[in-house]
Amino acid sequence: MMPWKATVLTLFPEMFPGPLGHTLLGKALEKGIWELEAVDIRDFAQDKHQTVDDTCFGGGPGMVMRPDIVDAALSSVAQKSRDRVIYLSPRGRVFDQNLAHEFAHETKPFVFLCGRYEGIDQRVLDAWNVEEVSLGDFILTGGELAAMVMIEASVRLLPGVVGDQESLEEESFSSGLLEYPHYTRPRMWEGQDVPEILLSGHHENIRKWRLAESQRITQQKRPDLWKKYEERAI
Amino acid sequence: MMPWKATVLTLFPEMFPGPLGHTLLGKALEKGIWELEAVDIRDFAQDKHQTVDDTCFGGGPGMVMRPDIVDAALSSVAQKSRDRVIYLSPRGRVFDQNLAHEFAHETKPFVFLCGRYEGIDQRVLDAWNVEEVSLGDFILTGGELAAMVMIEASVRLLPGVVGDQESLEEESFSSGLLEYPHYTRPRMWEGQDVPEILLSGHHENIRKWRLAESQRITQQKRPDLWKKYEERAI
Repeated sequence: MMPWKATVLTLFPEMFPGPLGHTLLGKALEKGIWELEAVDIRDFAQDKHQTVDDTCFGGGPGMVMRPDIVDAALSSVAQKSRDRVIYLSPRGRVFDQNLAHEFAHETKPFVFLCGRYEGIDQRVLDAWNVEEVSLGDFILTGGELAAMVMIEASVRLLPGVVGDQESLEEESFSSGLLEYPHYTRPRMWEGQDVPEILLSGHHENIRKWRLAESQRITQQKRPDLWKKYEERAI
Repeated sequence: MMPWKATVLTLFPEMFPGPLGHTLLGKALEKGIWELEAVDIRDFAQDKHQTVDDTCFGGGPGMVMRPDIVDAALSSVAQKSRDRVIYLSPRGRVFDQNLAHEFAHETKPFVFLCGRYEGIDQRVLDAWNVEEVSLGDFILTGGELAAMVMIEASVRLLPGVVGDQESLEEESFSSGLLEYPHYTRPRMWEGQDVPEILLSGHHENIRKWRLAESQRITQQKRPDLWKKYEERAI
């Protein structure tokens, strides 16, 4: 089986691997558990100034990336039937842990298309039938950081990346709840002890306490998640 | 007035500035429009192995960052009344464009506390009354990429960072709607012309078409945003 692979189309390939080259992700990259390639869209410009963008038809501020250049860049790394082409865009489906799991299980290679300026000409997005995914309801100067976040969230779920697979199952969202509070040494810190139940050694009571804390925190901090959790429980 | 400032507390200071040192953000950093400092939490470890974490009271997988070490790191860069201390956590308020604007207008210096492993001992989070902010409903291996995204989304709103202030007003979310499609040269590409209205030169009609497109896209792709937009419009 081929390793999980992401090709990033960007005007700033020097940003990669960047943070993805450190820590567990970086080690997994070195081991070949996943692969990363950054391709410079500017290499597909056709004039001597290496122009990739132009003004917006209909007027308005900012520049738009040309469809012919983006198409040439996409064609060099992707095939419509073979690859999963993601365009980082605030108009897309909002990225979440379910999508991270879906990405981690994907066997097709990924192409992350990073826009800059005002965005990309709509015709090339339509022609490639790109899948628009949004990191959240905010604006970045380009898709690069959003691609990094989605890659990190997905790759850490691949077998062999995070040492302890058990910890992946305990974490926030896997049960539909936010995670319970954690405590470690020193046992007494600034006059504050850790909750006594955690010292009891009674595993079933500890499990119940943690579940109750997860429920309390979710209910208090994220009524929207709590509602979904309750609906699922019925 | 002091420039906008972010101090990042992290076990991986070498990740910074990373992507934040490129493009418009990097230029603004060089110009002194904003400031960034990355501080290594491990420098505050007190044993010869530079230990920052320990096992979790009550059992379970993964390690937890010690309260005494995190407290020492926080104390070295922040004062409770002076700084805005953000802890990147899936339990936090979900980051969005409103919070990006709030961050951009903040006059207090920011401290972004990046957890690793299972998280940070709850007592030190309580003692500092940290503000928990979440990038979204997914899990990362640490807070670093989330901090970078929040910093980028905020700093690009500072005066002088993005050249064209007008483009900040036209973009997604500023009106509660997603952005309309963009088109640039060539006018005819792969047999597809750009929408005729954009060539008409009739500014009022173009404005109406773009608003209608924004409404159509928002209604289709994000019924949740559309509902809020409609409620606001009434």
